[in-house]
Amino acid sequence: MTHPLASWKDGAAKQAILDFVAAVTTPNGLSFVPPSDRIAVFNNDGTLWVEYPLYVQAFFVFDRVKQLAPQHPEWQTQEPFASVLKGDLNAVMAGGETALLQLVVVTHAGMTTDEFAEIVQDWFATARHPTLHRPYPELAYQPMLELLAYLRANGFKTFIVSGGGVEFMRACTEQVYGVPPEQVIGSSAKTQFELYDGKPVIRRLPELYFFNDKAGKPAAIQHYLGKRPIAAFGNSDGDLQMLQWTTAGPGRSLAMIVRHTDGKREFCYDQTGMSSLKQGLVEADQQGWIVVDIQRDWQRVFAFELER
Amino acid sequence: MTHPLASWKDGAAKQAILDFVAAVTTPNGLSFVPPSDRIAVFNNDGTLWVEYPLYVQAFFVFDRVKQLAPQHPEWQTQEPFASVLKGDLNAVMAGGETALLQLVVVTHAGMTTDEFAEIVQDWFATARHPTLHRPYPELAYQPMLELLAYLRANGFKTFIVSGGGVEFMRACTEQVYGVPPEQVIGSSAKTQFELYDGKPVIRRLPELYFFNDKAGKPAAIQHYLGKRPIAAFGNSDGDLQMLQWTTAGPGRSLAMIVRHTDGKREFCYDQTGMSSLKQGLVEADQQGWIVVDIQRDWQRVFAFELER
Repeated sequence: MTHPLASWKDGAAKQAILDFVAAVTTPNGLSFVPPSDRIAVFNNDGTLWVEYPLYVQAFFVFDRVKQLAPQHPEWQTQEPFASVLKGDLNAVMAGGETALLQLVVVTHAGMTTDEFAEIVQDWFATARHPTLHRPYPELAYQPMLELLAYLRANGFKTFIVSGGGVEFMRACTEQVYGVPPEQVIGSSAKTQFELYDGKPVIRRLPELYFFNDKAGKPAAIQHYLGKRPIAAFGNSDGDLQMLQWTTAGPGRSLAMIVRHTDGKREFCYDQTGMSSLKQGLVEADQQGWIVVDIQRDWQRVFAFELER
Repeated sequence: MTHPLASWKDGAAKQAILDFVAAVTTPNGLSFVPPSDRIAVFNNDGTLWVEYPLYVQAFFVFDRVKQLAPQHPEWQTQEPFASVLKGDLNAVMAGGETALLQLVVVTHAGMTTDEFAEIVQDWFATARHPTLHRPYPELAYQPMLELLAYLRANGFKTFIVSGGGVEFMRACTEQVYGVPPEQVIGSSAKTQFELYDGKPVIRRLPELYFFNDKAGKPAAIQHYLGKRPIAAFGNSDGDLQMLQWTTAGPGRSLAMIVRHTDGKREFCYDQTGMSSLKQGLVEADQQGWIVVDIQRDWQRVFAFELER
């Protein structure tokens, strides 16, 4: 039988997972946690799958703008659409939050929730990562897939708690991670129930309802679950408060931070602006959170072997 | 063996439940639904337990005001607190929404989520219904408890989707209904994650975040679950849109409305202002939704026998 964490190298990170799971699942043990309270939360981008050079959802936005462009001839000259259509991502990014919000609104709002789900599912079925040239569902980290499965095999309920759009993520989380839609918490748009031609629909409105990042994450966990997790996994300071909340519980807990250190097998952006991982490392050191160094701790990064 | 719906009288309502469950669970049947999509949603007050003469949560508010009164001598003369302390509920109600909101704020906000959970749990452990003289957890409807268990035994995941405060309901839903906190959707206050004396807490703020009623219910279901239910149970027009959304799905579905017609064994307020059930009955008639008449359809209302 293959070890359930076969893609993890032997070392402190793997051992911390094994020790933690053994401790909380040993009946009559000091740290035993009943299955109903075995809640594990995972950030998505950069923790469960690739986020470099941009979030997967950003590539969806750009592809969708290109797809809608024939219906919007004015986009050829109107920013930020013109730069997207030219493929000039630096120019898009230079437009800052306002530009990004405009792009999100035209690609994510106006349609019903059913229509949006179909658009995203269709995209996932054909889109490929611009530099890795693989469908996005293949860009999940194999060690994290094994970790999700290992925790579930030990009675854990696994949740995604991520800054990505909740309905965007739900289009693939069950297929990729085995996490059903009702266990995905993300950022969300305002929506409105209405009767459209006599048929009940839920329409996506062009307004942010909730941004699931930083201090919003523990608040959302409490809001959605009403329970404090005992294990949390992230990779940036956007996950800091989620890890603080998880580890401040009364019993044993596990907190892990993934560091992107492997330019050969994945991407190395650990010390760049992209990662935004500073305070997390300071607290990891102080609190004994586990740092997962991809180069050092993962035997294999993807299910396929990347050739470069 | 006792029949799983032993407290339901034979009749159209019971038969509709049996037929529906048989249809969606028969492998290779035309209406088969895989277990992951067997989602059933229940309103709480008036559907799963007593809501008369006031919502259970209202009694919590009044008791809590009395408990806090010694720290607020000004309440003796200040409305709406003075009327609560005198037990003059009509005067409280005359203050309308503003008065109720004031009462909710002082009893539901300011403390951390952990502190609030403890306050509510303590209250449930000792409080009794003012006219039935029973602890509230005993005031769940026995036929609905059997229905919840029957659906779960047939692979359904059962959710509460109610206008009550989500953290208030969570203090008892697992014990009373077997529904864990993460399967409870309700109205909610804004909250804020903060470090308090260096310790992470989530604080309840004096502001409504989401009111889970009417058109808000299907929007919340989509927001939290990302899946359309196939069964929905309510008792007022506050549940109308939830039933519309549930029954507008592509496959077979079940929608039921409980009518409070039994003044002897429970309360009869079917044709009064309290019930607010008008459009629901019209659509039930048009759409073939099942009306559950307590007097006609329930063999027993509570686990105990009420003596009056």
